[in-house]
Amino acid sequence: MHLYTYSPSPNGKRVGVVLKEKGIEIATTEVDILAGENLTDEYRAKNPMSRVPVLELDNGFMLAESIAISRYLEGLHPEPRLFGAGFEEQAVIEMWNRRAEINFFLNAAAAFRHSTGIFQDRESVCPEWGEIAAELARTAAEAFEAHLAENEFLAGDRFSIADVTLGCALTFARNTGLDVLDNPNLAAYFARVRARPGFAKDAS
Amino acid sequence: MHLYTYSPSPNGKRVGVVLKEKGIEIATTEVDILAGENLTDEYRAKNPMSRVPVLELDNGFMLAESIAISRYLEGLHPEPRLFGAGFEEQAVIEMWNRRAEINFFLNAAAAFRHSTGIFQDRESVCPEWGEIAAELARTAAEAFEAHLAENEFLAGDRFSIADVTLGCALTFARNTGLDVLDNPNLAAYFARVRARPGFAKDAS
Repeated sequence: MHLYTYSPSPNGKRVGVVLKEKGIEIATTEVDILAGENLTDEYRAKNPMSRVPVLELDNGFMLAESIAISRYLEGLHPEPRLFGAGFEEQAVIEMWNRRAEINFFLNAAAAFRHSTGIFQDRESVCPEWGEIAAELARTAAEAFEAHLAENEFLAGDRFSIADVTLGCALTFARNTGLDVLDNPNLAAYFARVRARPGFAKDAS
Repeated sequence: MHLYTYSPSPNGKRVGVVLKEKGIEIATTEVDILAGENLTDEYRAKNPMSRVPVLELDNGFMLAESIAISRYLEGLHPEPRLFGAGFEEQAVIEMWNRRAEINFFLNAAAAFRHSTGIFQDRESVCPEWGEIAAELARTAAEAFEAHLAENEFLAGDRFSIADVTLGCALTFARNTGLDVLDNPNLAAYFARVRARPGFAKDAS
């Protein structure tokens, strides 16, 4: 296997956390998305969506999407189990992972991209949408705040892929100026998540 | 179990297709999101994100997110298998489901909401973002068009949850004026998907 990623990006971090949690090492090539290395024909042949990360499997298949890559890695190295055991727990974890991603992370990412225009060389930028997206992310954070009053991790008492997603998204949000850690339960949760082995280095 | 849904919505349709594919019937309450029935305190107690559908499990747990619900239903009724067998196939299906959802469906939904202002009574509207999102959806459709030149379904030769997502998203896009079916491979694919038992009635 070979991993193509941009480690500092939130999706790069998600796979990085999963690898560390499971103690897996994979030969890695860094693809500098800030320099546009993901926009070359060579990279698009790996992933037509131009996104990182991509895991090249041993049979040559190019597996994109951080959650799909993480699920594959869980199949290879089941422990610690991040996607749950049994379909009921798996469904609950999936619900929380999607809430963390769709309601919070995607809005936090849009807030950053459209407020700063960091990728204006390659995408249309709409600052007004950036402001709306920031507000949507803050609203989602309040829902997590309420939930975390009674739960150690998103899906209950066990760290899961949903916490990988929200932990990386909170790191990204904080680093890009969308700080929602004035929510005390969310701040305490973020500290718990950052204490995990997978976050030890990357949560800075 | 009891399903709370708004059947005509794209996410309502996704679960509706899964139920029909698997031949499952569940007692259902329609929640009219156009009339704001998902914004009441009573509904927020079921899903703090205010979204449909939600599946109330027999133990009282409220399972939200159409893909999480679908994964739970697959656990109860494994055939026909929509999420794949074995972690490698499951990862490939997850990759395509995410591409269909994040790159196409979410943009098509944003295009509709922000171009029409249909939910302006409850959310900030940005028409400029609606136009950008429509263009992003069209770009994603072109990537599917290229892939479908050589594949019967998104994840290969077998209908999967990724096709449920893209099929429902294409129906939604067409019905809301974002027609990408001038892509011939995508149009032929849409006809194949609509011929599935699960789409027989809902694809209109």
